[in-house]
Amino acid sequence: MAKLYTYFRSSASYRVRIALALKGLDYESVFVHLPSGQQQAADYLATNPQGLTPSFETDDGEALTQSLAILEYLDETHPEPPLLPADPLGRARVRAMAQVVACEMHPLNNLRVLKYLKGPLGQDQAAVDGWYGHWVAAGFAALEAMVTKFGGADGYCYGDAVSLADLCLAPQMWNARRFECDLAPYPRLVEIDGRLQTLAAFAAAAPENQPDFT
Amino acid sequence: MAKLYTYFRSSASYRVRIALALKGLDYESVFVHLPSGQQQAADYLATNPQGLTPSFETDDGEALTQSLAILEYLDETHPEPPLLPADPLGRARVRAMAQVVACEMHPLNNLRVLKYLKGPLGQDQAAVDGWYGHWVAAGFAALEAMVTKFGGADGYCYGDAVSLADLCLAPQMWNARRFECDLAPYPRLVEIDGRLQTLAAFAAAAPENQPDFT
Repeated sequence: MAKLYTYFRSSASYRVRIALALKGLDYESVFVHLPSGQQQAADYLATNPQGLTPSFETDDGEALTQSLAILEYLDETHPEPPLLPADPLGRARVRAMAQVVACEMHPLNNLRVLKYLKGPLGQDQAAVDGWYGHWVAAGFAALEAMVTKFGGADGYCYGDAVSLADLCLAPQMWNARRFECDLAPYPRLVEIDGRLQTLAAFAAAAPENQPDFT
Repeated sequence: MAKLYTYFRSSASYRVRIALALKGLDYESVFVHLPSGQQQAADYLATNPQGLTPSFETDDGEALTQSLAILEYLDETHPEPPLLPADPLGRARVRAMAQVVACEMHPLNNLRVLKYLKGPLGQDQAAVDGWYGHWVAAGFAALEAMVTKFGGADGYCYGDAVSLADLCLAPQMWNARRFECDLAPYPRLVEIDGRLQTLAAFAAAAPENQPDFT
């Protein structure tokens, strides 16, 4: 059976959990406790040389890393429901929105980066919170403009079907709330996220519904 | 004609320049001078709400953002030579390597982040250089392990064909050299990069060969 190496609060793991639930795929969860450093254990590094979550092990025992690459793999091997539109232009729009989160927001605000700010750079919690909020605001402002242009009126980030962009949005919104970022400037994102939260796959994947939630 | 909004030193622009050259596509370059803040001009923000380079405007006038999304679009609309293997597992491997650079290394070390470290966080040049080197080392160590596993003996990041992973590697190596990072721990990456530099498309896309190079 396929295995997902996951941590409840890891937003990249959260993205993959949503996809697995949407596509109705069975898998075994292997919990990697990031705060205690389990991702740096030698056996985990052999699977994922970056020491990050998630990793996904296919039914054939192939270990995959990087959440967006895993999501595209799941979409190519289990096409229903699709995570990307059929046309190249639509796919480019959806991928760009997903990458605003995955390439510009999340990398700046994940655990190892916040630790570096506090440790080697000697920043206090207020400065770290300011950093976090700064990159959330920069990313969400751009994403709000994009979903206003491309989103469905009563739908999701791109038109009326859930896509890769929504799988990235929901975990990033969860993170932003955890850090008490002001979401008032992003009414469309809040609205879309609210709609996503009503879907069973998003609820199943939510951090608070994971067995390793603490 | 298609347009690329580019800056010679922007490594995300550099990736797209390589793809356009590999696929032999004609386009017009529009130079966006990042150090003087041209990416924050209102007309540019209308095209690219993140105020980042590159943007790519298709022949039909559709503006695309995010370099990896643009690269996949170019590959879907102009399949030869392919930037991804044909099989889902190979595609997942290549995308994961590309994302080590595009989602973990480059976002931490681009211009706006280094400016934030110096400005709001008041870090000196030595601390900024330390930060830069830290994330380059973390990313390249993982990438070295990945290309050792998946790269071709006399080939590239994944097997013997140039892929999306190589299009991300070469600009990141250029950046690392600019910041005088020690590349001795990554002999396979250095070797692959050396091979890439002999290809006409990589030479045509190199920062020093751009009209806006200064």
